[in-house]
Amino acid sequence: MRMSAAAILLCLATGASARETWIVRTDLWGNPAFSTLTLERDGQRLDGDLDGDRGSGEVRGKSIVFDAIDRSGVVSHLVATSTGQRLRGTIEGPDTNTPNVRVSHAFTAWRVPDRPAGPARTIDFVPSDYSNTFAADRAPVLTLWPRDSVRTTTIDSGGVDAKGVTRALFGNPQTGPFFIAGAVPGDTLVVRLVRLRLNRDYADSLDTIVGRALGASFATQAAELGKPVRWKLDRTTGRASPDGATGALAAYSVPVRPMLGGLAVAPGFGSPPLSTGDTGRFGGNMDFNEMVEGNIVYLPVQQPGALLYLGDAHALQGDGETSQYALETSMDVTFTVDLIKANAIPTPRVESPTQIMVLGQAGSLDEALKGASVGLIQWLQKDYDMTLSQSAQVLGSAVRYGVPNLAGRSVGVSAKLDKALLPAPHHVVSVE
Amino acid sequence: MRMSAAAILLCLATGASARETWIVRTDLWGNPAFSTLTLERDGQRLDGDLDGDRGSGEVRGKSIVFDAIDRSGVVSHLVATSTGQRLRGTIEGPDTNTPNVRVSHAFTAWRVPDRPAGPARTIDFVPSDYSNTFAADRAPVLTLWPRDSVRTTTIDSGGVDAKGVTRALFGNPQTGPFFIAGAVPGDTLVVRLVRLRLNRDYADSLDTIVGRALGASFATQAAELGKPVRWKLDRTTGRASPDGATGALAAYSVPVRPMLGGLAVAPGFGSPPLSTGDTGRFGGNMDFNEMVEGNIVYLPVQQPGALLYLGDAHALQGDGETSQYALETSMDVTFTVDLIKANAIPTPRVESPTQIMVLGQAGSLDEALKGASVGLIQWLQKDYDMTLSQSAQVLGSAVRYGVPNLAGRSVGVSAKLDKALLPAPHHVVSVE
Amino acid sequence: MRMSAAAILLCLATGASARETWIVRTDLWGNPAFSTLTLERDGQRLDGDLDGDRGSGEVRGKSIVFDAIDRSGVVSHLVATSTGQRLRGTIEGPDTNTPNVRVSHAFTAWRVPDRPAGPARTIDFVPSDYSNTFAADRAPVLTLWPRDSVRTTTIDSGGVDAKGVTRALFGNPQTGPFFIAGAVPGDTLVVRLVRLRLNRDYADSLDTIVGRALGASFATQAAELGKPVRWKLDRTTGRASPDGATGALAAYSVPVRPMLGGLAVAPGFGSPPLSTGDTGRFGGNMDFNEMVEGNIVYLPVQQPGALLYLGDAHALQGDGETSQYALETSMDVTFTVDLIKANAIPTPRVESPTQIMVLGQAGSLDEALKGASVGLIQWLQKDYDMTLSQSAQVLGSAVRYGVPNLAGRSVGVSAKLDKALLPAPHHVVSVE
Amino acid sequence: MRMSAAAILLCLATGASARETWIVRTDLWGNPAFSTLTLERDGQRLDGDLDGDRGSGEVRGKSIVFDAIDRSGVVSHLVATSTGQRLRGTIEGPDTNTPNVRVSHAFTAWRVPDRPAGPARTIDFVPSDYSNTFAADRAPVLTLWPRDSVRTTTIDSGGVDAKGVTRALFGNPQTGPFFIAGAVPGDTLVVRLVRLRLNRDYADSLDTIVGRALGASFATQAAELGKPVRWKLDRTTGRASPDGATGALAAYSVPVRPMLGGLAVAPGFGSPPLSTGDTGRFGGNMDFNEMVEGNIVYLPVQQPGALLYLGDAHALQGDGETSQYALETSMDVTFTVDLIKANAIPTPRVESPTQIMVLGQAGSLDEALKGASVGLIQWLQKDYDMTLSQSAQVLGSAVRYGVPNLAGRSVGVSAKLDKALLPAPHHVVSVE
Repeated sequence: MRMSAAAILLCLATGASARETWIVRTDLWGNPAFSTLTLERDGQRLDGDLDGDRGSGEVRGKSIVFDAIDRSGVVSHLVATSTGQRLRGTIEGPDTNTPNVRVSHAFTAWRVPDRPAGPARTIDFVPSDYSNTFAADRAPVLTLWPRDSVRTTTIDSGGVDAKGVTRALFGNPQTGPFFIAGAVPGDTLVVRLVRLRLNRDYADSLDTIVGRALGASFATQAAELGKPVRWKLDRTTGRASPDGATGALAAYSVPVRPMLGGLAVAPGFGSPPLSTGDTGRFGGNMDFNEMVEGNIVYLPVQQPGALLYLGDAHALQGDGETSQYALETSMDVTFTVDLIKANAIPTPRVESPTQIMVLGQAGSLDEALKGASVGLIQWLQKDYDMTLSQSAQVLGSAVRYGVPNLAGRSVGVSAKLDKALLPAPHHVVSVE
Repeated sequence: MRMSAAAILLCLATGASARETWIVRTDLWGNPAFSTLTLERDGQRLDGDLDGDRGSGEVRGKSIVFDAIDRSGVVSHLVATSTGQRLRGTIEGPDTNTPNVRVSHAFTAWRVPDRPAGPARTIDFVPSDYSNTFAADRAPVLTLWPRDSVRTTTIDSGGVDAKGVTRALFGNPQTGPFFIAGAVPGDTLVVRLVRLRLNRDYADSLDTIVGRALGASFATQAAELGKPVRWKLDRTTGRASPDGATGALAAYSVPVRPMLGGLAVAPGFGSPPLSTGDTGRFGGNMDFNEMVEGNIVYLPVQQPGALLYLGDAHALQGDGETSQYALETSMDVTFTVDLIKANAIPTPRVESPTQIMVLGQAGSLDEALKGASVGLIQWLQKDYDMTLSQSAQVLGSAVRYGVPNLAGRSVGVSAKLDKALLPAPHHVVSVE
Repeated sequence: MRMSAAAILLCLATGASARETWIVRTDLWGNPAFSTLTLERDGQRLDGDLDGDRGSGEVRGKSIVFDAIDRSGVVSHLVATSTGQRLRGTIEGPDTNTPNVRVSHAFTAWRVPDRPAGPARTIDFVPSDYSNTFAADRAPVLTLWPRDSVRTTTIDSGGVDAKGVTRALFGNPQTGPFFIAGAVPGDTLVVRLVRLRLNRDYADSLDTIVGRALGASFATQAAELGKPVRWKLDRTTGRASPDGATGALAAYSVPVRPMLGGLAVAPGFGSPPLSTGDTGRFGGNMDFNEMVEGNIVYLPVQQPGALLYLGDAHALQGDGETSQYALETSMDVTFTVDLIKANAIPTPRVESPTQIMVLGQAGSLDEALKGASVGLIQWLQKDYDMTLSQSAQVLGSAVRYGVPNLAGRSVGVSAKLDKALLPAPHHVVSVE
Repeated sequence: MRMSAAAILLCLATGASARETWIVRTDLWGNPAFSTLTLERDGQRLDGDLDGDRGSGEVRGKSIVFDAIDRSGVVSHLVATSTGQRLRGTIEGPDTNTPNVRVSHAFTAWRVPDRPAGPARTIDFVPSDYSNTFAADRAPVLTLWPRDSVRTTTIDSGGVDAKGVTRALFGNPQTGPFFIAGAVPGDTLVVRLVRLRLNRDYADSLDTIVGRALGASFATQAAELGKPVRWKLDRTTGRASPDGATGALAAYSVPVRPMLGGLAVAPGFGSPPLSTGDTGRFGGNMDFNEMVEGNIVYLPVQQPGALLYLGDAHALQGDGETSQYALETSMDVTFTVDLIKANAIPTPRVESPTQIMVLGQAGSLDEALKGASVGLIQWLQKDYDMTLSQSAQVLGSAVRYGVPNLAGRSVGVSAKLDKALLPAPHHVVSVE
């Protein structure tokens, strides 16, 4: 990933003492597994760790050997050779099913570039292609460090950009992924939505009502729904209105509230690339209408570097995204990333200037609401030092539930609390 | 029911022409069925209707005979005698299962008093007992006419009044029922919550989290929940705080928002008296935290006179009533009743100064949300002249869902729209 | 209730030492509460217990005083006078909400007749009326002792008997209630369905498919459903076929499997009479197609005497009762009652010659299935001495789920295990 | 894909008239789309169709041009060159979002080999690797024609084969995919499970109870669950028993009923490769315990060639797969494929010698049951000529519901009918 083979070889060859971080991609019978390998060289000797398991080894010309030992004393044995821009070798360890048998898997690795000197950067990024999956195995478009910011754009859910040109296959194509240096599973990625602005004068939607909102009602009439509706976006007044509306909607206009429908980290080990229409603990196509400018989104990191994706912007979305498509449009987006180390939140969170919010997602509203409630309680317990009994009193007197998303395979339920009611939290957004 | 036997007899005896309304209670193998009988006398001749079916008959001394004919030509034949305060007799009509067989059932009837002259009244009503069921067969405590107002009180869900005295069995004992003259099934009862004020300095709650919010999480800790929590109500500052709270809740206080957890009309024909913990199309223990001062509640009338019940006031309630008990307290309540004739709404509605809201109730959130959505669409179609396609666009861009109630057998989901976005409605609250 | 005032007075007057059992109905602000009072007289002195709380008192002419003391030392103080067929008096005890305040409630009591000498009886009972509620406050039609059997009949869900005559209001009118002497809350009532036989040649059903099975599918066609379907019952061949069927159903016939849709004990303290269309832990309109001849039903006793109701027989019912009405018909029923003392099962159970089964009931299938699974695990733990881990292995390898009921407010899910796979249980059906 | 470049070149070069079928893989901004291209050569002229749209073109040396026209007259224009084993070129057609703009996408194509002469074959297939996704873009391991049979093996869900050797990554690695020549979207793939036999003496499971069965019950005890349980499989007696069981399970043994947990066609256009733990309309990890020897499985074809995957065999599985893992083992499998052309079933079906069954899958049992019911009704309507009213009568009197799967993201509900009750169907399993 943009790393300099020269630099790598220099380090391994010269024995200059420097801490290098490598992202290891192991091939497990055709499936990738990603790890973080940290190496520090002292002459021929190597010290470091593999996903936190301490180890040591040595450099032999263009090759290295390295043994990492986990808590139970099990050794992973790496042998690798530098092949220009990559390390390439094998990792040997115990078989999953029969631990007394040791097996060997091939791997490659790329080196994370060193952190640039100076303050956090603001980088302008112009996407050249888009991803139709949330994938751990897609090459990052950019490496960021905590506190870096990015100014970029997203295209609409149909793959159309600000100029009306189709740039990708429909289905929420995403900008990214962005690799956040230092992020490892167990951390929380912090994404501040610094700026979300409309960049064209229309949005596309439908006159649908999803089955989860309508059930068996209006059977005959419902069959006529599903037609495209184009909405005019007035960027001066900040209002949206259905194009050519008549009758009861002749004067209908709604204030826009630009938001990102999709925001995700790559899903964890064992998951194939996921559709950009899907959601989960990793975020995804959450279609949560609180992903707006000024708010902060927290996602649990699942893979080294987190691999942040964003897309599917909406000029505006009612709760539930009941029309299946919200007001789909392209967007100018500025965001800042940060990390909370070693704090694995169970489910996506959002913080606004006035509220803390948790999004529960599941196959039914009943299960999604439990997820949201439990996520909120865990937040109160960890960052506000509340007991479960105290959390119960706060929820009973102050929780607000919403239903942002009914349109996907999973539905989303939000649980919110006013920050003004709560004591000062002690979570700290901090870099490694 | 406070009606004057003398007046009744006078009318029947003298043949003075006057329109009398009687509420007929027919005994169907031990089950009551209620009808409205309207009679107008001209000499010996009687004209009138039975639940809208026109009929005629005659007076024979203290007895009457009356035949009402429905649209298909089926005749109901009444024979009755005045027995002081009541009519008492039989109704003969076709058997339910074998329509060619005619069967006879005993009935009694009481006469609805004539409407008082003058403008709508404001009546002070001091309850002497309370009902632990929503029942069609409980004697009304007061007869109201559309636009009348009542100043009264409710006791808390445990049966305790403003002075701390137990006045009824726990389980949301209700004030009422109030008989609204002119209300018949198919009408909508309008209840304006003119004034809802705290009348004591404490509320009782629990430190519970209901299973629908918590699921299997926090298993071990959850077992310790369920303890009583007393809340102090500061009527000067309008804030509630848990009594004796320490640690993270030491400074916890929440603005009160007094509401009625229970508001109901009597359930319809075929239903036995229902627990005041239950809910349905008739309203009931909705625990909807928008039943606050200044809002208007609409309920579909199920029985002659509607029979309005109210109780289970909360100083404050988070969404979902997740603590099983909200901040339960007694309340001063002033309300005004009105009727929308011949407009059977499918599910309870609430109107605030800024929003229209529908409450869907079912055994799961997934079904309750459908009920709320469908109820809102029906409102848009009927009162705002929208097509289903237009409703779809409004929902997709503007609907807000909430989850007021998770604590009962049925759960409640609300669907809300800002009135500022909508055209002028043409529903009119009007008396018969 | 069939008890002899003479006998009562004799006992109280003469001081003959005899153990008497009284069912006490206390009036709590208009709501009944039922207790079991046992009295034994020795001269003027009385010993006994009130719902298990030991007490003592004395006889003063036609009056008694009696103090019962619970585990925490709280005293209930009864004062009563015999008024012919009843005791009538007051019970004084602590106020629910303010235990340091003592309050007094009126009560009446009826005496349970003494157990007849000799072996268990088989009683022919011809119902004279039917109940449209499952009620604790309805007078029993018969007092039974454990191991007694009853030969009786049920009418169909529309109130029609074997001869086609309407005998009660539609909505599953029930035969009963039967008072089972010795049953108290915490016991399990055992009902053996000794004989269930058709007693007429037709059943009534609909060509409906309930919304829970159909959802929004077949919208236009579905609107045409809901028509009555009469089924011929051939009592010789034991098959049912839709009357006048043509086309694909011209030769359609299904073996009958007569069952009771309704089987219930009275609901517990705090519940009003429940609709015979409703269900719960007490049983009710379970519509479980394993309530057939040869099977045993277990229900958790909620009230003194259990108060057994039965009705709503079906000649046959597919899973889910998807047609809203099964093949509704009248039935000849013979059953035997028994008690398992002090063993409160959490949910209704059924035992066939080959399987044990638990019925979970809730507002959604997801919740009902949990109820069924948990009920089955509790059975394995208690009667088969299994640990939770062992139960997990049995369920994982052998459980069978079914969905008997989709047609009511609550749905039912069954969990079944083959008895041949299980070790010998050690529950024993035994009388007090 | 095993096809002969020589043969291809021969045909294109010599102009011998022969019908060739090519599978076209178009690259849509990084996403594959698969089509079937049929070509017939007459000298330089080409005739044929692209996914059924008729077209024509010509051969120019090693290149071809071909225009296919759809029903609305829109032309797809192919230009391609043979590059040894593949065609490689571009397809030009209208842009998705702006149909008046034409865009061009690169494609490659491979030629489906000609059908072997002679009767249907039985092929022994020894897998060399396994797939952890259900993917449309994985190279087929074998091309089959309708009525061909395959004798092969599957490894267990942990990737372990009959000899106890780990052969693939855990998570239901699959044997396949098998390409079924002639299959196109809209067809139904028929898979007869001719033989399913245990091929080793143990299976692995857990002592878990999934949250969907247990809910919040047994909180403290439940935390101790989740331990591995090894089951002994006695291939002589055909029974399974937990290894080393004591106490209540000391004599516990259950008859095995070998089944395939996973059976899938590749998911359709727009879907990325799906986890072999996932399910859907395409089949997948259905964990339906009726996928046993002797039964026929029907799956709706989503991609050219269907691409059949199979794996995750269970020696035995209780309903719901409540232990998260069933009795996971390797298996000998013989199956026969067939096609029903142009008959797109909505959801997976199974046919046993005595029953027809439909599997509904969704995020909640409530929704899955609707899917099963609707799928069964559609079967009755199409293959048994029933009206919806007749289907309603059949369901109401005869449907049986089961709950095979609770352990995945989606749950499965089965709806079954006895074939003995039904008239003769007229669906015919036929080859193209």
